[in-house]
Amino acid sequence: MARPGRREITGFSNPTVKALRALRDKKHRQRDGRFLAEGLRLLTDARESGILPSTLVMASEREAHPLLDALEADVAAAGGEVIETTPDILGKITGKDNPQAVAGVFAPLPTDLEAIDRTAAPIFLVAQALRDPGNLGTMLRTADAVGAGGLILVDDCADPFGVEAVRASMGAIFTVPIAQARWEDFLPWLRSGPGQLVAASLREAVPYRGAPYGAPCFVLVGNESRGLPEDYEAACDLRVTMPMKGRADSLNAAVAAAVLAYEVLDAVG
Amino acid sequence: MARPGRREITGFSNPTVKALRALRDKKHRQRDGRFLAEGLRLLTDARESGILPSTLVMASEREAHPLLDALEADVAAAGGEVIETTPDILGKITGKDNPQAVAGVFAPLPTDLEAIDRTAAPIFLVAQALRDPGNLGTMLRTADAVGAGGLILVDDCADPFGVEAVRASMGAIFTVPIAQARWEDFLPWLRSGPGQLVAASLREAVPYRGAPYGAPCFVLVGNESRGLPEDYEAACDLRVTMPMKGRADSLNAAVAAAVLAYEVLDAVG
Repeated sequence: MARPGRREITGFSNPTVKALRALRDKKHRQRDGRFLAEGLRLLTDARESGILPSTLVMASEREAHPLLDALEADVAAAGGEVIETTPDILGKITGKDNPQAVAGVFAPLPTDLEAIDRTAAPIFLVAQALRDPGNLGTMLRTADAVGAGGLILVDDCADPFGVEAVRASMGAIFTVPIAQARWEDFLPWLRSGPGQLVAASLREAVPYRGAPYGAPCFVLVGNESRGLPEDYEAACDLRVTMPMKGRADSLNAAVAAAVLAYEVLDAVG
Repeated sequence: MARPGRREITGFSNPTVKALRALRDKKHRQRDGRFLAEGLRLLTDARESGILPSTLVMASEREAHPLLDALEADVAAAGGEVIETTPDILGKITGKDNPQAVAGVFAPLPTDLEAIDRTAAPIFLVAQALRDPGNLGTMLRTADAVGAGGLILVDDCADPFGVEAVRASMGAIFTVPIAQARWEDFLPWLRSGPGQLVAASLREAVPYRGAPYGAPCFVLVGNESRGLPEDYEAACDLRVTMPMKGRADSLNAAVAAAVLAYEVLDAVG
């Protein structure tokens, strides 16, 4: 028997289970707008940022935890739904063999350029055509760490609200403003106010160390395989490059963004 | 019909296909020692580093490419086996839906501490209990980029020769020396010669920027969830920390290693 206020689901073929599982599918998730996040730590980060799930799904065999009790109470008080189900069904919903004890369904977050306040921080991250959801989540985590005012996703990037990106963000999905825009919309927006656009470049560029960064600084990295298009780089205020002492000519995109962001932070932070 | 010198495989249940697939399984791979790498770029990196696969597997419907021809010629000249198979079977071997046109099976590489020459470079990377193969591969790629003399994997880390780590290394698996050791063996080895051990720490530590780094510098990062054990940190010569301006208290492990390594490189490179 579920506790009062909880709805109990015990069947894999339950329509709610199917609807929650479908949020793992990108096309369905983007139509629906809602997204899944799992784990008590992530959900507590969200709660402490003032964001509660519309639906909370808990494993019936979980151990008691005061943060989970607080989460459940807040969700119930806000009129949200609390579901209790088996660990197996929760694993099916989140797609993990060893699922966390809790997952939540969140309403869509705003992702237009108006979500970005360029006066809010000295640094912003921008990714162009970033395809790997793990890289995207890692960039969100780095954006949180350097105190960035947001992550702007230009052109066709991975879905920031997919389960893998949310997981890699370690909670930053709830704390870092995210915008999605085409380049032809991003550039006029950027140029409509103060902002230095700095490209991590594989081409002709100045050393990243001690380059003349200025706030608000928008740190731009390109696609994992192709880097930035040449005309995008040409539109930047500054092109910088990191030492490459080995055989390879590039870093992992999330790594490049972080190394550059920490250098910029030292100059403008 | 396969070209002369090539063996053609058209059946999914062929024993060679099964044996190659099994290299994706960690337990089997570690018993066997051999490992898989895929893609013309990776295999060409290996070849240019003087490392050839014992078996080369090519998709029959691939487009001709001079680098692939050169690879095939070198493998055949070295007495290796060249297999031609369908794209579907190659995908089954490498576990990818859209497989690269070519994969190779490589003999085990040395991974004891003697593989590391501390006079070869001013910087080395060390990871403790790093569990994510993508992070491990990314650290190899970073090690190559900063010109590190090697990556030392302490305690129970992900398998550096698993398909995912090899893929994320972008060829650095062939160019960066790798060692695997328990902490109780690593520390005496380190102390038997010159070497500064620097921990990326979440605890009390000096700012990473401008810390007194000295070559050869061994940059140590800990497990993704738990960081470094306290007594490991205490054994280090220097504990440094990066600014954390947001809600989270840590960076992705591969990101932390890279930000710190680039800072060290500026001091000792």
